[in-house]
Amino acid sequence: MDLYFSPLACSMATRIVFYEAGAEARFIEVDTHTQRTSDGVDFRAVNPLGMVPVLRTDEGALIRENVAVLQYVADAYPDAGLAPRGRLERARLQQWIAFTNTELHKAAFVPLLDPKAPEGAKAYALEKSARPLAVLDEHLRDREFLLDAFSVADAYLATILNWTVAAPVPLAQWPAVSAYLARMRARPATARAMAEETPLYLREQARRKAEARQLPV
Amino acid sequence: MDLYFSPLACSMATRIVFYEAGAEARFIEVDTHTQRTSDGVDFRAVNPLGMVPVLRTDEGALIRENVAVLQYVADAYPDAGLAPRGRLERARLQQWIAFTNTELHKAAFVPLLDPKAPEGAKAYALEKSARPLAVLDEHLRDREFLLDAFSVADAYLATILNWTVAAPVPLAQWPAVSAYLARMRARPATARAMAEETPLYLREQARRKAEARQLPV
Repeated sequence: MDLYFSPLACSMATRIVFYEAGAEARFIEVDTHTQRTSDGVDFRAVNPLGMVPVLRTDEGALIRENVAVLQYVADAYPDAGLAPRGRLERARLQQWIAFTNTELHKAAFVPLLDPKAPEGAKAYALEKSARPLAVLDEHLRDREFLLDAFSVADAYLATILNWTVAAPVPLAQWPAVSAYLARMRARPATARAMAEETPLYLREQARRKAEARQLPV
Repeated sequence: MDLYFSPLACSMATRIVFYEAGAEARFIEVDTHTQRTSDGVDFRAVNPLGMVPVLRTDEGALIRENVAVLQYVADAYPDAGLAPRGRLERARLQQWIAFTNTELHKAAFVPLLDPKAPEGAKAYALEKSARPLAVLDEHLRDREFLLDAFSVADAYLATILNWTVAAPVPLAQWPAVSAYLARMRARPATARAMAEETPLYLREQARRKAEARQLPV
């Protein structure tokens, strides 16, 4: 499978899932500002929304949205047990992926991390993130993972919580969430994904800075 | 099954799914302002996030988030064919539910419909909704449904697009989306759900207005 990703973006969740499954994939880097991919293609032809992740299956089908991509990859490696198969447990998995997707990723972090978002949008996002983070803290108080065992929902949540440093969201207010993030980061698959994507992120930032200097003011 | 809902909120998607399946459920109304349910319970005990929908399964388990609830109900009535079962087609279903959930529902309509959201948040939301709506318009140009046949993703998308009148989002710019919404509203299950929830919505609004008048200024 091919995974279109941007360094340290939400697409890192799927990279973590591949590594947790002991599987490999072809990773194609996307600069979401220029919409160019590392193999020289206009990314909008792959995803008109211009967003990562996009997965290309072995049959050539394109799938986007973390909710879909994470479960598709988990189900491709059932022996790794990264997505429960029972109806109720699968619903719970989807519930936590959706929670991360909407309350944290979309409602909070997109405006907080967007340099073009107006102050009103950032203040609103920060205010709206407090309740979901409190609910998450309560849920994680006596749990190691979102469900009974590590799942793709944890790979996604850890990837998003990772952004609290840059946003910045004062995670220390939610000690169970902070401790959870530290635990997830210590897992070999997450550590490997971060070690691989961090230099790519720094290179991307340096390239963007250099390009900005060359633009007429 | 029991469905906790608020009139004309995103929970209407699940009511539509029950009706499309020819099934019934117990519908429990929630006032999300007061967090009281029509059976006299504090809704935060049901969902600490205070949001509908919440589904109580026949076994008494609580499931929240549309992504999870819609698929759970569809899979409870497999003969109705409201959620494809093949791996790739299920991924596509999840992709469109997630798109509706994040790009439209959470990123656009929550700030646009929230009287407490600052102007900056509303302007940002409206600006960010243009690209997803254009992508959706392109997708629906020669299609009757999001997938090959009617699915729970359509029940959800129609419910959310219904809010464009109140938001207001000028849907006429996207003629394929406008025509799709008209088609979905004409389906008997959607028409029945709207006919049942509209008077409840008007009653809720009247009650809130009356309560606001009684508050000290």
